Amino acid sequence: MKYFAVVLVFVASASFAQTTPLIIEDFKPSSLNQPQQEYPQVNSQGYARFKILAPAADSVRVSLGLGGRGGTKLKKGEDGFWTGTTAGPLDEGFHYYNLKIDGGKFNDPGAMNFYGSVRWESGIEIPAHDQDFYALKDVPHGKVEQILFPSKSTNTSRRAFVYTPPGYEKSKQKYPVLYLQHGWGEDETAWSNQGRANLIMDNLIAEGKIKPFLIVMTYGMTNEIKFGGLRDFKVDAFQTVLVDELIPYIDSNFRTISDQAHRAMAGLSMGGMETKMITLNKPEVFSHYGLLSGGTYKPEDIKDKSKVKLIFLSCGSKERPDGVKSAVEELKAAGFMAVSYISEGTAHEFQTWRRSLYQLAPLLFK
Amino acid sequence: MKYFAVVLVFVASASFAQTTPLIIEDFKPSSLNQPQQEYPQVNSQGYARFKILAPAADSVRVSLGLGGRGGTKLKKGEDGFWTGTTAGPLDEGFHYYNLKIDGGKFNDPGAMNFYGSVRWESGIEIPAHDQDFYALKDVPHGKVEQILFPSKSTNTSRRAFVYTPPGYEKSKQKYPVLYLQHGWGEDETAWSNQGRANLIMDNLIAEGKIKPFLIVMTYGMTNEIKFGGLRDFKVDAFQTVLVDELIPYIDSNFRTISDQAHRAMAGLSMGGMETKMITLNKPEVFSHYGLLSGGTYKPEDIKDKSKVKLIFLSCGSKERPDGVKSAVEELKAAGFMAVSYISEGTAHEFQTWRRSLYQLAPLLFK
Repeated sequence: MKYFAVVLVFVASASFAQTTPLIIEDFKPSSLNQPQQEYPQVNSQGYARFKILAPAADSVRVSLGLGGRGGTKLKKGEDGFWTGTTAGPLDEGFHYYNLKIDGGKFNDPGAMNFYGSVRWESGIEIPAHDQDFYALKDVPHGKVEQILFPSKSTNTSRRAFVYTPPGYEKSKQKYPVLYLQHGWGEDETAWSNQGRANLIMDNLIAEGKIKPFLIVMTYGMTNEIKFGGLRDFKVDAFQTVLVDELIPYIDSNFRTISDQAHRAMAGLSMGGMETKMITLNKPEVFSHYGLLSGGTYKPEDIKDKSKVKLIFLSCGSKERPDGVKSAVEELKAAGFMAVSYISEGTAHEFQTWRRSLYQLAPLLFK
Repeated sequence: MKYFAVVLVFVASASFAQTTPLIIEDFKPSSLNQPQQEYPQVNSQGYARFKILAPAADSVRVSLGLGGRGGTKLKKGEDGFWTGTTAGPLDEGFHYYNLKIDGGKFNDPGAMNFYGSVRWESGIEIPAHDQDFYALKDVPHGKVEQILFPSKSTNTSRRAFVYTPPGYEKSKQKYPVLYLQHGWGEDETAWSNQGRANLIMDNLIAEGKIKPFLIVMTYGMTNEIKFGGLRDFKVDAFQTVLVDELIPYIDSNFRTISDQAHRAMAGLSMGGMETKMITLNKPEVFSHYGLLSGGTYKPEDIKDKSKVKLIFLSCGSKERPDGVKSAVEELKAAGFMAVSYISEGTAHEFQTWRRSLYQLAPLLFK
């Protein structure tokens, strides 16, 4: 359970420049800014620059970007704006962050918000060399459908999002389904907002690289949202919602191929832990398993090898790539169809998981 | 065009108590708080109480709740938390707000965010005596589907949300469509987030009060998002997106009855202005018109009376109810099917529009 520790730390990853860095002055507004907002900005090297209006504040700090444990300290100008640039370039992709203003935690009014760390955080996007695979392109687009499904076990209507591929509405085809879980402190919005799962699928489908399937994303912290509560995490409550309530609802309200062979589960970080627990508890329900920065399976974890069609394990190169690779070698040696993927130059963050989904999708339901 | 002025002012409505009020200490967290957040709170009288951590701040103020032009001033306690209660009860329903901290504008970290005033604002919900009609109940739920539709005129894929009623997926029925617009500074998320359009529809359908139809919600500030820009507002760019791009996309990707008789347009505030302009420009496209706090039609505005099946005009009792009522009388006298609705005790805010949708829906497509 070593990988949990990583989840509980806010990861502000950056490469620290040894000498005074030459910062290229080609900063542009982050693609995740609110409409008309000029800041935060990002340059071609991956530095981020912040600008916050708070004329009477004593201190403003951004949780991102090294410069010591506290992130990036901003300096006040005569115009009342606090500005500052990260001490080094940030990793490619999406980062959560927040502001510390006079001792309180607030969001950057320039940035859009994304749910992580059990709060709506500010988000910033560092352009990536491979961002094309999750870009919004002029291709046919699937839908992200918000559903409210009845849950007797929790006595409420619960929310899920369902990705349906382009043409789903008009076709008569039935589709396999991937149940895809977010990480600790996130919710069912994460995979389509910061993860761009729908655009990754749209692009893969447009290029003919995958057979279309549905993705179902729901809230996985059914019984446990307190900070640090993972130590006592029990998967039962969520497993009941997922397996006994959501899956039957999806199978009766969408055109699915509703058998084990055409049902996959994957998750990132804590969602990987849930995926591992639930797939091992319910081998008759899922045939394809994916843990994204979410641990590993050992061959002896799995009772009936014939039921497992694929095990996909991934993480960022800044996490524990050796653990993932050696686990996959062990699984292969034991006769499993197992695949590892290491995301180069990324840590326990969404760029690792966007890339992991891009690698996983073509392997599913073959 | 008098009603525009109202849009451009942040409306913090409250009834001011003349004497020192007796505040009942039954405060509970607002239903729109982020998970696990105890503040903001609301009591049974409609007072709101705020609590913000900012130990080193010099001043914290909430934009809501009278107490002078600046809203509610909070006071710092020894624990570093700033607290305060509105000077009077707020109107029932949803309110946008923000915090002014040491001269900068930020959101309340306890509350969820809602897009209004061209920014993601904090939101608070004052329980209403009639909140049952937009409550999340144990009834069959429709879906809110996010679509990305191609728009040549703006050279991008644009987002819209489509409400489909319960059972849409499995039925073979075709449905009428209401195109429903947000107000100035809001976007396509407003009607389902703060407006609860999907829950209003689910509940009306469950009670057998309406014939189900689709609702399509897209972004209406295509060419104009600058503050104050309404003076020069031209509807052409949005009309092209709506009529020439979105409607054909909806009609070819959803099971719609794609004729004028089964197509309605309505909008709140600026969305009402757009509705008026576009329905008058395109009488062959829409047959049912709704302006919610969004102005009025005069009989002479309409060239071909036979094309108009319904005109619905509404506003809050704290707006200009007389204007709405007299406009409807004039329209009726001229032989139009016209209906007015006044929301009691509400102003230019979402409770007026939730109620207006609830009143409008049963009148559509009869």
